[in-house]
Amino acid sequence: MDGCVFCKIVAGEIPVTRIYEDEVVLAFLDIGPLSDGHALVIPKRHYTRIHTCEPDVLADVGARLGRIAQAIATAMGADGYNVLSNNGSAAGQVVDHVHFHIIPRRTGDKVFTEWPSHKYEQGQIEEIAARIRRNLE
Amino acid sequence: MDGCVFCKIVAGEIPVTRIYEDEVVLAFLDIGPLSDGHALVIPKRHYTRIHTCEPDVLADVGARLGRIAQAIATAMGADGYNVLSNNGSAAGQVVDHVHFHIIPRRTGDKVFTEWPSHKYEQGQIEEIAARIRRNLE
Repeated sequence: MDGCVFCKIVAGEIPVTRIYEDEVVLAFLDIGPLSDGHALVIPKRHYTRIHTCEPDVLADVGARLGRIAQAIATAMGADGYNVLSNNGSAAGQVVDHVHFHIIPRRTGDKVFTEWPSHKYEQGQIEEIAARIRRNLE
Repeated sequence: MDGCVFCKIVAGEIPVTRIYEDEVVLAFLDIGPLSDGHALVIPKRHYTRIHTCEPDVLADVGARLGRIAQAIATAMGADGYNVLSNNGSAAGQVVDHVHFHIIPRRTGDKVFTEWPSHKYEQGQIEEIAARIRRNLE
C-alpha cells in the first residue's frame, strides 16, 4: 500500500536486514530491538490488522513462526521467546501492516516484567463470554 | 499429556469459560485477565512450544486468530488487542502447552507500558542476522 513502510520494505525500497523470505512472508531484524535478534515476521501483502487479514494468509504466517523463532532462539542462545502482535495504536501498533514480533528472551532479562492481572467479579466472566460467543456463532 | 492443565481443560476435566471450539482449537477466557475479555487460544493437541508445534497445527491456530480476536474486540468495545505467545519460562510461559493470549486493549489502559528498545552497535545487526540465517538455510 502506498505510504506503508513495511510495503516499501517488501518492495526493496527501504533497506532492512532480512533473515527469511519466501513467496508470502518476510522476516527481518527490528532496528530498535527489545533484545538482540528481535525480528519481525510480516505477510508480504498489506493488511492492517490480524482480524482483517485473510485466514489463509494468517495460516501461512503461523506455519512459519515456529521455524523462524527456533532459528532466532538457537542463534542467540536464548532461553525462550515471545511472539507478539500488536493490533491498533491502543495496543502499541506503530506500523499499520500486520506483524509478529519474535523477541528472544533470557532468564531474568527483565524485558517484559509487567503482568497486571486481575480477577473477575462473580458472574462477570460468564456474561463477558456470552457477549463474545454471540460474535462467533 | 498427563499432568498438563490445558490438556485437562481440553478433555473437560477442568472447567473453563469456553468461547470457541472446533476440531483443532479451543479458546477460553483467562481467569486472571490483563483486561476483561482476555482469552487464550490453544491447539487441542499438546505441544510445549511454538517451535515444537507442527507447522500445519500452527497454521490452523493462526487461521482462527483473526476471527476470535475480532469477536473479543467487538464484544468488549476494545480499541485494539495484543496477540501474545510466551515460550519458555524465561519468556513468561507458565503452562507448558502452546497458547496465544488475546488481550483486548483500550487507549491509555496502561496494560503494557514497557517497550525498552535499544540500538545495535555498528555491524552488530548484520553479524546477528548471519547467525540466524544459517539456521534457516
